[in-house]
Amino acid sequence: MKGQLLHRGRQKTYVLVFEPGDEVIDELTAFARAKGLAASHFTAIGAFSKVTLGYFERERKDYKPIRLDEQVEVLILAGDVALKDGEPKVHAHVVVGKADGTAHGGHLLAARVWPTLELVLTESPRRLRRRSDAATGLALLDLEATATAA
Amino acid sequence: MKGQLLHRGRQKTYVLVFEPGDEVIDELTAFARAKGLAASHFTAIGAFSKVTLGYFERERKDYKPIRLDEQVEVLILAGDVALKDGEPKVHAHVVVGKADGTAHGGHLLAARVWPTLELVLTESPRRLRRRSDAATGLALLDLEATATAA
Amino acid sequence: MKGQLLHRGRQKTYVLVFEPGDEVIDELTAFARAKGLAASHFTAIGAFSKVTLGYFERERKDYKPIRLDEQVEVLILAGDVALKDGEPKVHAHVVVGKADGTAHGGHLLAARVWPTLELVLTESPRRLRRRSDAATGLALLDLEATATAA
Repeated sequence: MKGQLLHRGRQKTYVLVFEPGDEVIDELTAFARAKGLAASHFTAIGAFSKVTLGYFERERKDYKPIRLDEQVEVLILAGDVALKDGEPKVHAHVVVGKADGTAHGGHLLAARVWPTLELVLTESPRRLRRRSDAATGLALLDLEATATAA
Repeated sequence: MKGQLLHRGRQKTYVLVFEPGDEVIDELTAFARAKGLAASHFTAIGAFSKVTLGYFERERKDYKPIRLDEQVEVLILAGDVALKDGEPKVHAHVVVGKADGTAHGGHLLAARVWPTLELVLTESPRRLRRRSDAATGLALLDLEATATAA
Repeated sequence: MKGQLLHRGRQKTYVLVFEPGDEVIDELTAFARAKGLAASHFTAIGAFSKVTLGYFERERKDYKPIRLDEQVEVLILAGDVALKDGEPKVHAHVVVGKADGTAHGGHLLAARVWPTLELVLTESPRRLRRRSDAATGLALLDLEATATAA
């Protein structure tokens, strides 16, 4: 994965180009750590050679994995980067298209890029924080912590 | 729903975090009125406990409602805020994912959030206007009114 | 198609409103040439009267066309504009919704707007370049060329 700063203002815009075989969450998290991202949002298009989607099961309070072991178009990948326990955490959802044109999607658990993924990310000059939510077990955005820290 | 300003420039960036039970259009319209939004665009990810999609039927000139009474992932919610008769009007489309990973979507008629929806909105320093279109009955963006008013 | 500048900073934001019968790639490419776009990204919602989706077949190194000759909602259209051989080239993926609410999508090969498409585009003050990739036959983003030229 290669990254390039497109615009250096109080908000920064980066373009990231992923390469064949890149694991999306790993690469994006490594980039977020290297750049100290704390309040970013992003969208991307491209293609995967395989992907694991997640569907949140309310009763189990966990994601059911849905594995697609086939080449799919990435129709839209969207999400954000916020701080969880002081470290940048990526949260992304994805829609993919199969060879027959049908669309599938879910929470992004894992994905392997082939041949490319083109991602545009905007970093804001604030810090967004996540806090574990007892009712769901999920790490939800906590704007009160954000306001206090800003 | 809680909102937080992420960036205060000539363009403003807000992050909105919706809470369990929030009705999306109602909350977002209330936020748009409170902040005087007149030219915004947004994207969001999260999950709904139920949603009503709309498909525009050309002959009827109206939306056919498609109700999904089940927990779905919000894979992408995208849209804009413009002025219609002087009041901010939200226009959004959505893609959701079911438990089997299939994707469904349409014009967003109504949606109930559970457990969260994370929305990033950019407000521009112009006014976008909608005007009723006789041919379709829809309130389409009218850039000539925008240019005149700017 | 009509375009309007929403924000004139070092990054520019445009809103484009397409009209009935507009061919999306043609109109967007013409706009990109007229404005000299070299590093843009965009999202859009609206509806098409017909669309041709593409699925990239790895063995053929080419897109299989998937034609939908029916009215569909445009749930999300996302992509970027970069330079290929000195000319702006549009790369877009799309998710559409049929009358039954099912979602379909792929690489955008061609699409006819009806009645509208609302697109927000951000142009950055850099130049993104594409270079033909021998392994796939695709024109991939080349950030090294971007860095050298910036």
